[in-house]
Amino acid sequence: MASEFDLIEQYFTRRPRRAELGVGDDAAIVRPSPGHELVISTDLLVEGVHFFSDVEPESLGWKALAVNLSDMAAMGATPRWATLGCVLCPGLGDGTSAPSESSSWLELFARGFFSCADRYEVDLIGGDTTRGRRGATTFSVTIVGELPHDQGLRRSGAQIGDDIWVSGAPGRAAIGLAHLQGKAELRDTLLSECLQALHRPVPRIELGLALRKIASSAIDISDGLLADLGHLLKASGTCARLQFAALPEAGLSRDAFLAGGDDYELLFTAAAARRGEISAVSAALNLPLQLIGRVLAGNAGELKVIDQHGLDITPARRGFDHFR
Amino acid sequence: MASEFDLIEQYFTRRPRRAELGVGDDAAIVRPSPGHELVISTDLLVEGVHFFSDVEPESLGWKALAVNLSDMAAMGATPRWATLGCVLCPGLGDGTSAPSESSSWLELFARGFFSCADRYEVDLIGGDTTRGRRGATTFSVTIVGELPHDQGLRRSGAQIGDDIWVSGAPGRAAIGLAHLQGKAELRDTLLSECLQALHRPVPRIELGLALRKIASSAIDISDGLLADLGHLLKASGTCARLQFAALPEAGLSRDAFLAGGDDYELLFTAAAARRGEISAVSAALNLPLQLIGRVLAGNAGELKVIDQHGLDITPARRGFDHFR
Repeated sequence: MASEFDLIEQYFTRRPRRAELGVGDDAAIVRPSPGHELVISTDLLVEGVHFFSDVEPESLGWKALAVNLSDMAAMGATPRWATLGCVLCPGLGDGTSAPSESSSWLELFARGFFSCADRYEVDLIGGDTTRGRRGATTFSVTIVGELPHDQGLRRSGAQIGDDIWVSGAPGRAAIGLAHLQGKAELRDTLLSECLQALHRPVPRIELGLALRKIASSAIDISDGLLADLGHLLKASGTCARLQFAALPEAGLSRDAFLAGGDDYELLFTAAAARRGEISAVSAALNLPLQLIGRVLAGNAGELKVIDQHGLDITPARRGFDHFR
Repeated sequence: MASEFDLIEQYFTRRPRRAELGVGDDAAIVRPSPGHELVISTDLLVEGVHFFSDVEPESLGWKALAVNLSDMAAMGATPRWATLGCVLCPGLGDGTSAPSESSSWLELFARGFFSCADRYEVDLIGGDTTRGRRGATTFSVTIVGELPHDQGLRRSGAQIGDDIWVSGAPGRAAIGLAHLQGKAELRDTLLSECLQALHRPVPRIELGLALRKIASSAIDISDGLLADLGHLLKASGTCARLQFAALPEAGLSRDAFLAGGDDYELLFTAAAARRGEISAVSAALNLPLQLIGRVLAGNAGELKVIDQHGLDITPARRGFDHFR
């Protein structure tokens, strides 16, 4: 068994692009850009909660960073630096626990992590590694990004009358999960797209940057569209009405679209006058942006979903909460 | 059972002192001080590895932050902002797992965490909370500090001929642990000091700040004095000879002093010409600083320990590594 220091040296030490001091001292040192604020977020990925023991470690490595980058996207920030905490555990070979302390597993995890880090030009500047009990593999990623002063996309900025938009095709991750659990059957392109959404989510960094001066508020969809819209509305002291002409795509259920978690698309609000700019952003990024509703005055956090016939179809369950 | 959002709201949401945006959005926003670099570090605390199931949650809350602050001290940085990831688990009441998801446990943990945060003026600006398996309670703290440009105390700065110093009384945490495990018997003042060192370590923040322009290198002792000195010497490309006239205090064993981990004292090097300034720092902070050896030319990382009679007493085991 390699030592903690060997593991760090072997898999997680890379020369940083823009850090004064990276992995290997008591702490890393980085130099923030003048005139910028820092944006900081932490996410946990826990075995049995966020991933199964038989997860592909390379996908998990990508996802561990990608879900944090999604928080940067939702703030309109440029991601810069990350730290990684790893609780690595023995696997007994019967598939009931991730063998995350094995070199082969960890090497693949690191490969996925760094392929995401390279894609978004993020430096891994520090971390901590320890051994845990079987079945308790846990990763904790903290990301630090930058933002020009006062340009952050906060949840609290939605104004009455604003349009409500969502990127991409929410629900795919939930449908992909349902497929893996034998609760749905997908095929061909849709299957691969849904599994891609579940295992290799694409953080909407470029969209967040493009929306800095356009959107009034933003949030990423990790708990489910309605749940996260609820958080945004509560923070903004507003309510909302969603209306769909049709579902975004054949084969995706309305429930998955509205309440499926783990999507990492961006939900944002903007004044109706910005529709032209938003269409231009959608075209430039080759990313569908769908107008799904409007911000209204009323009880903070309340929302109603109306179908194409004008019927109220608001579901009882809004999304996913790890403690319910 | 309270929801994840309720838990965050109830125990971990406090108005930050110096953040633009704290807990409750996709990420926090902070404004770094002009002319400063950022110092960033992450530490994990894992049940069964770093603490037992019957740990006092209030002490653990203090320690979870304090061990990270110690990394800031070792860099000479001023700690500013922290994030906290919590994997909370059920306890079955038989003492074999920490009931960390219970409100009473979590409230005490938060109390300890914030008493340390208040003491060192650190803002908790974000985090993530999830449920884990029984026996897998885990905390992940990331700390962000500030440092005037190019004043960081790196491990790599030790120069041949420098003195080697250590603060306080290393070994107390290890002796306290030995007492709890029935391997040592302590009494009265020494017992309470050793348990204090183990459960409520005091990060040497003020010492780190005072040493910014005095020390040539520094590291905190979390793995054991010799192990951490070894890391520092390796980074500096030097070796060392330690010599003790006597042990620092009656009742503390030499092994605990040299190889006991979990201490969070600072080990640092400085030119012999700085001895007067170092004595003045010791007096001003009312903190013993002990001269224990000298940096020499030779194979990077090698070190020798000599007793008062000139005999080589270098122990085989240098310290603690979670993966050995």
